[in-house]
Amino acid sequence: MSLPADTTRFVLVRPSHAGNVGAAARAIKVMGFADLVLVAPRFANVQQHDDAIAMASGATDVLAAARVVDTLPEALDGITWACATAMTPRDFGPPTQAPREHLPALAPQGHRVAFVFGRERTGLDNADVYRCHACLSIPANPAYGSLNLSQAVQLLAYEWRQALGGWPVVAAAPAVRTAPRADAAAVQGALAHWQAVLERIGFLDPAAPTKLMPRLNQLLNRAQLSADEVHILRGIARAVDDAAALPRTPAGSRKQG
Amino acid sequence: MSLPADTTRFVLVRPSHAGNVGAAARAIKVMGFADLVLVAPRFANVQQHDDAIAMASGATDVLAAARVVDTLPEALDGITWACATAMTPRDFGPPTQAPREHLPALAPQGHRVAFVFGRERTGLDNADVYRCHACLSIPANPAYGSLNLSQAVQLLAYEWRQALGGWPVVAAAPAVRTAPRADAAAVQGALAHWQAVLERIGFLDPAAPTKLMPRLNQLLNRAQLSADEVHILRGIARAVDDAAALPRTPAGSRKQG
Repeated sequence: MSLPADTTRFVLVRPSHAGNVGAAARAIKVMGFADLVLVAPRFANVQQHDDAIAMASGATDVLAAARVVDTLPEALDGITWACATAMTPRDFGPPTQAPREHLPALAPQGHRVAFVFGRERTGLDNADVYRCHACLSIPANPAYGSLNLSQAVQLLAYEWRQALGGWPVVAAAPAVRTAPRADAAAVQGALAHWQAVLERIGFLDPAAPTKLMPRLNQLLNRAQLSADEVHILRGIARAVDDAAALPRTPAGSRKQG
Repeated sequence: MSLPADTTRFVLVRPSHAGNVGAAARAIKVMGFADLVLVAPRFANVQQHDDAIAMASGATDVLAAARVVDTLPEALDGITWACATAMTPRDFGPPTQAPREHLPALAPQGHRVAFVFGRERTGLDNADVYRCHACLSIPANPAYGSLNLSQAVQLLAYEWRQALGGWPVVAAAPAVRTAPRADAAAVQGALAHWQAVLERIGFLDPAAPTKLMPRLNQLLNRAQLSADEVHILRGIARAVDDAAALPRTPAGSRKQG
């Protein structure tokens, strides 16, 4: 198995829906984590539940390796920093922060970190929150901020991976962007070429200049043309010029030859 | 309906699973968005599908209001900046960036933004990517980076909301944290009190000092005690002192009175 070694644990306390357990397994695996612990899930053998397997997709390895325990303290064995997740603040317990506030400072501290998620409908009990070192709340719509359990797992796994340094995005290597940029002179040359053609075809009147050329200039500047694209634009200008120079047949089609 | 006014659109191209459509509706609503457009979904009336309604949970309003169109260009009507999402780079098309690279710069530009998501198994067609102004790729596990569709929607909705300024986390107001911090003298007083008690009960030998007191000092410093907590610690010290002063009964229990 090619999962990166990582000591981060994800703990689901009393999850009710097997699909959410499978989706959580996938959510942590795509962010490079693999340690999933289930505290007293509604389905004792949820790792074999059809919905869990379906939602785990390519993360059935993480799902199958998930451990089931009876209590949160067992789930936190070996953990040095437990982050509760809660949408509603508690009167006591650790201070509540947004993940992006808390995690970047936590990442370099070398903790064995657990993220602890409560039941789908009711979240974590106060007693479970009080066991944790921090309480994380995902900033959400004040009018409806109830994230699906596996979505909350996905966001936390993502934020923690980002805090740990993230992964590079596999950048596209589009030909247009890796090609050498055209310099300003090349762009001006193309514009002059087009201006001449536009005058030739009667679109621009040299005696009554408009703002057209400055606007085209701005457009091309924003487009950050490549040298190849300048050639393409000049090729089109030439073709327009050629077409305009040809006498037309009565039917309006270009004369052959 | 109390959804915040927002012009951001989420577009799902040819979604196969009704549950994902419902989960996407919930994912955007919890981040304060409401405009969901479905391009040629597998189930034409997916808004009424049981799985979609179940997964939408409290976002059935967003699900019911989702529009179904035949093509991506129809879905992008009125949009000025379309962000494709793609895990695999394309040879042509817009440059690929991580959401956190692209979105903060995009947020202040006043665009009508759409986020475009492809099919569960195959993602977006190249032709659809080429219509977009940017291509976003969620940084994920190189060994298994396949996010569930609705999870990808959730992450993008979250990142875009964050880029737009986010929402405040409803901070807990834990009594311990809002109480005045104890000053250093108060902490030293408590330590001295405990040192005396520990010597009294024979735990510390004043003739052979150990590192215990400096370590307790460090521990209390890290804990950043409140004034109330100093009182509690001194109260415990007093109680220990009192208990140690009492003669014991043969059974080892404290003498009454």
